[in-house]
Amino acid sequence: MRPVALVAGGMAKFGVRSATWKELVQEAGKATFDAAPGLRKEEVDSLFVGAAEPERFAFQSHVAPLAAEQLGIRPWRMVQRVELACASGQAAIRSAWLAVATGLSDVALVLGVEKMNIPDPGELQTSMACVLDREWDGVHGASAPPFFALCAQRHMHEYGTTREHLTAVRLKAGKYGQHNPYAHYPRFFPREKVESSTMIAPPLRLLDCSGITDGAAGVLLTSAERARQLTDAPLHVWGGAQAVEGHNLASMRSWSTWLPCRRAAQEACKLAGIAPKDVDVAQVHDCFTISEVIVTEDLGFCEKGKGGAFIAGGQTEIGGEVAINTDGGLLARGHPIGATGVAQAVELLWQVQRKVPAQRQAPDTDVLLAHNLSGSANAHSVMVYGSQPRRA
Amino acid sequence: MRPVALVAGGMAKFGVRSATWKELVQEAGKATFDAAPGLRKEEVDSLFVGAAEPERFAFQSHVAPLAAEQLGIRPWRMVQRVELACASGQAAIRSAWLAVATGLSDVALVLGVEKMNIPDPGELQTSMACVLDREWDGVHGASAPPFFALCAQRHMHEYGTTREHLTAVRLKAGKYGQHNPYAHYPRFFPREKVESSTMIAPPLRLLDCSGITDGAAGVLLTSAERARQLTDAPLHVWGGAQAVEGHNLASMRSWSTWLPCRRAAQEACKLAGIAPKDVDVAQVHDCFTISEVIVTEDLGFCEKGKGGAFIAGGQTEIGGEVAINTDGGLLARGHPIGATGVAQAVELLWQVQRKVPAQRQAPDTDVLLAHNLSGSANAHSVMVYGSQPRRA
Repeated sequence: MRPVALVAGGMAKFGVRSATWKELVQEAGKATFDAAPGLRKEEVDSLFVGAAEPERFAFQSHVAPLAAEQLGIRPWRMVQRVELACASGQAAIRSAWLAVATGLSDVALVLGVEKMNIPDPGELQTSMACVLDREWDGVHGASAPPFFALCAQRHMHEYGTTREHLTAVRLKAGKYGQHNPYAHYPRFFPREKVESSTMIAPPLRLLDCSGITDGAAGVLLTSAERARQLTDAPLHVWGGAQAVEGHNLASMRSWSTWLPCRRAAQEACKLAGIAPKDVDVAQVHDCFTISEVIVTEDLGFCEKGKGGAFIAGGQTEIGGEVAINTDGGLLARGHPIGATGVAQAVELLWQVQRKVPAQRQAPDTDVLLAHNLSGSANAHSVMVYGSQPRRA
Repeated sequence: MRPVALVAGGMAKFGVRSATWKELVQEAGKATFDAAPGLRKEEVDSLFVGAAEPERFAFQSHVAPLAAEQLGIRPWRMVQRVELACASGQAAIRSAWLAVATGLSDVALVLGVEKMNIPDPGELQTSMACVLDREWDGVHGASAPPFFALCAQRHMHEYGTTREHLTAVRLKAGKYGQHNPYAHYPRFFPREKVESSTMIAPPLRLLDCSGITDGAAGVLLTSAERARQLTDAPLHVWGGAQAVEGHNLASMRSWSTWLPCRRAAQEACKLAGIAPKDVDVAQVHDCFTISEVIVTEDLGFCEKGKGGAFIAGGQTEIGGEVAINTDGGLLARGHPIGATGVAQAVELLWQVQRKVPAQRQAPDTDVLLAHNLSGSANAHSVMVYGSQPRRA
C-alpha cells in the first residue's frame, strides 16, 4: 500500500453548545479546510464521518451525505459514516487511511461529530445504554459509569490501585487541559476538588468522568507524496488495528485487563515496526480515570498492575517515559463520542506541527500513538503514527 | 492493491420475521459460514456491518462488536459498522474490499442487516424520514414514497414514461422473484393486480414500492489468490465508487436524471476498465419501480429517457441486453435497508456460482454490476465485478 499522511486538522470548540449537529460539522469542517490552504475543497474525493448515534441524538440518518452538503463538497469515491460507538472517530480514520493507501482516494476528509446535549437527559441516558448489549446489560441498569466503576474496583482489589492514583490522572488532565482552548473544561482542578466531587459510582466521582460534550473535529489525509506539498510536518500513518472480544458483560474474561486492548496494540505496533517504549506521545481513551490506568498498562507502556504508580510518578507527563494526553484527554477535552477519535488525531498532528501552547508541547514527537476504546471496553482501536515516513 | 474476491454468500429469509436483530445476524452468519466450508471462523480478522438505523429500529448501537459476539468471532484488524442509509450494505462491502486489497485484512466478513418491522409503525415512519434532511424535508412530510413519486411525475413529463413502463418493472420483479426462496414476496403479481393496488403517492401504487422487510445477508472476502482454494467460482472485485451531490431536496439539480448515479457508474466502470454495455448481469436499487427506470438510464444501459421502453421491451430480462435484478430486486426480495446491498452481492456471486434456480440463472456471467442508492437519490454506489480476475 502507498504511504499515507494526515496533513491538516481542525476542531470545533468542545462543550455544551447551542450549535446544532449540522453547525458543528460546518465549524470543524471550516477549521480543517482553513488549515490546508494549499488544498482545494474540490479535491476531496472521499468523506468518512465518525458518528456514534446521530439517529438518536440528532434524529438524523444518512449523515455522510448530509455532512457533505454542509461542507460544500461532492465526493465521488467513498462516502460513508463509520460507527464504532465511542471509537467511531478513529474507525473513520482507519477507513480513510486504507482508501488513500489503495489509491482509490487521493484526498480524504474525516469528520468526527456528536451532539450530545439534547433537551431530554433521560433520552440521552437510555441512548448511551444501548452502546452496551441492551437486552442483556442495558435493561439491568448497566451503562458506562457503573461498568467502569466495577473495573476500577476489580483493579484496586487485584493490584492495589488507589484513590490517589485515580486523582493523579485527573490532575494531569487539568495540568494540560487548562492550556487547551478547545476543551470542554479548560481549567485545573486541584486534588481536594477532585476527591470531594460528587460520587457517581464508587469509586468514581464526577471529576473521574469525562463530560457530556458537543463537538466535532476534522482531519485531511492524502498520500505521503502529496503531503509534502501541503505541510512541512505531516503525521505519517505507520499502522493500525482494532480488536474486539465479546460484548455482553458476562462474557468478559477479565475486567482489570482489557485483552482486546493488548491485541490491538500488539497488532498495530507490529504493523508499524515499533515497540510501545518507542512511543513519544500518546493519546489514550480516558473516558474515566481508571480507563487511563488500565490502558497505560495494556498498551504496554508499563508493567501490568503498575499503571497508577506510573502515572502518579509523572512518567506519563511531558518529560516522562511517554507523554500521554497532552491536550487534557477526554477528561478535560470532553467526550462527544464520534468526535473523540478524530480530536486525538488532531492533537497528535498539532504536536508534530508544533501548533500547541508551549505548556503542553512535547519536545520529542517522532513516534505517536492513538488509542480509542468503545462499548464495554470490548473493542479497542490503536493507530501508530510517525513524524517521518515509516522506516522500511 | 492486491486483487480481491467474494468467495461465499449467505442469506437469512427476508420478510416480516419474528426474529430479533441479533437472530437475523446469527441466521445470515451461519448461512455465510456454511457456504465456505474451507474457511475457519478464526480466520476472519475483520468485520464490516452494514446497518442503517439499528439505534432506532433495534435500540442498539456499537453493533459491529455486538454482531461479532453473535457470530462467535473475535476480529483483530478492522471492526466497524458502516452506514449509508439504504446503501449501507454496499458501502460495507467497499470498505472490506479495500481492507483486503491493502493486505491489512486477509479474510473479511460483511454482514448487512436491518430489523424494520417494529411494534410502532409511526416510529418506523419518522425514523425513515430522518434518512432525508429532517429539518428541511422530513418536517414537511417528505419521505421515500412521495419523493420517488415526484421523480416519477417529472420523468413522465419529460420523457413520456408511462404507467405501463412502471408495471413492466414490477412484472419482471415477480417473474424472477417467484423463484427466490429468500424473497419477502416470492410470487408473481399480474398486471391487473399491480395496476389496481392501493395508491400510495401518485403515480406510485403499493406494488410499485419495495416492502418493509426484516433481513440479513453476508459475504466473505479474501485475496483472489486465497479465493481459488475456497471456491471454483469467486466473484472478483474489479472496481467501485460512490458519488454524492447535495442532500436537501431543494438542492437537487434534476429529479429525472440522477447525476451522482452517472458519476458513480462512470468512476466504477473506469476503474474496472469496462463500459456499461459489457455488463451481463446487474443488480440495481429498485426501491420503487421508477427507480429502476431512471437508474437503467443513468447507469448507461440505455439512452436517457428510454428506460421504460427498454424494460418493457424485455431488454433487461435474461436473454436481453443486460439481465437486471435476476432475484426479483428490492420489489420482490424486500428492502431491509442495511441488508440490501449485501443481498445484491450474494445474488451476483450465486449467479457466477450457478447456485440459483434455472428460471433465473443468466447464461452469461462474465461482467456484473451492483447499484445501491440512498437518501433523496443524492448518493449512489456502484461496484463492478467479474467472474475472472480483472483484465490488466
